[in-house]
Amino acid sequence: MTTARRDTYTPETLLSVAVQVFIERGYDGTSMEHLSKAAGISKSSIYHHVSGKEELLRRAVSRALDELFGILDEEHARVGTAAERLEYVVRRMVEVLMAELPYVTLLLRVRGNTGTERWALERRREFDHRVAALLKDAAAEGDVRADVEVRLATRLVFGMINSIVEWYRPDGPDGRGGTGRQEVVDAVARLVFGGLRKAS
Amino acid sequence: MTTARRDTYTPETLLSVAVQVFIERGYDGTSMEHLSKAAGISKSSIYHHVSGKEELLRRAVSRALDELFGILDEEHARVGTAAERLEYVVRRMVEVLMAELPYVTLLLRVRGNTGTERWALERRREFDHRVAALLKDAAAEGDVRADVEVRLATRLVFGMINSIVEWYRPDGPDGRGGTGRQEVVDAVARLVFGGLRKAS
Repeated sequence: MTTARRDTYTPETLLSVAVQVFIERGYDGTSMEHLSKAAGISKSSIYHHVSGKEELLRRAVSRALDELFGILDEEHARVGTAAERLEYVVRRMVEVLMAELPYVTLLLRVRGNTGTERWALERRREFDHRVAALLKDAAAEGDVRADVEVRLATRLVFGMINSIVEWYRPDGPDGRGGTGRQEVVDAVARLVFGGLRKAS
Repeated sequence: MTTARRDTYTPETLLSVAVQVFIERGYDGTSMEHLSKAAGISKSSIYHHVSGKEELLRRAVSRALDELFGILDEEHARVGTAAERLEYVVRRMVEVLMAELPYVTLLLRVRGNTGTERWALERRREFDHRVAALLKDAAAEGDVRADVEVRLATRLVFGMINSIVEWYRPDGPDGRGGTGRQEVVDAVARLVFGGLRKAS
């Protein structure tokens, strides 16, 4: 069993294990020893794949960031009114968060002590600004309310979306696989754009 | 100076220091030694006030919980339509979060390893259920949309509100003292009930 795992170990499976350990112990609290034990391979085997834990962190948060920035290049994020594009981006953000749950969770917990963490925070801010710009355009086009300041509205909307990592579990008691995911996406879109109040 | 601080040390100031240390180091990662250093008083002086760090945690999260549950006893949370009471409770939750920022931040980070943590999580769930019940009543009265499941809507609304602890700083670059607090309260109420879309 151990031998089999060793033989089939790929950078991808190592990354997946590392992300779990980073989330459980915190990045600062994780040593190469912890990673070695969790992965069931020796430290030197890990060094065969990566230069150290910071490279694992960089690969993990890159995966989340690439998926998020990828949304902005999709057709529906580029074509249409700003409000339509914004709604598309919000829906896709929720989808990416659920599909890449551990990677996005880790990205949201990054605090900025190492170069990689500061880089990740900078990229997150860049993404936030891109979405805030969309919201600003939608307000200028008259489709989004102008009585909530753009930066504040962006923060609150991101707050709602990002909070999903706190309770969403694909296979847990709160698991919403398949159509369940769609239910979460629709709920967020309805609340973000229409609010709780019933349209009269 | 040290003597003066010792003389004027009260359970209240000790609690305030302890909460900061718990937030920075995590509750598990905090020792009596850390608390003693941060407070500038000896461990035995701390034991003069409290039985240990768990009592400090209990007092801190109790302060946040008492303020939150207190909202539900206020007149406007008891009188009016369910939708009116819900909006009042949402606004007051945001106010309490900003007024008791470190205490609510700590409450939201509690994870449940000790008896006190499990008790705090149970009380949080109880509060969530009380607000969810209000939302359910508002939907039954026809004032709140029924196309988002109550538990899911409650989670998303709490997610938006609780995310404020991530960026709100009373005196920081994002500080919004005085009328600024009101701006945050109004923004949350507008987004939670009316959403981003401009009323046509």
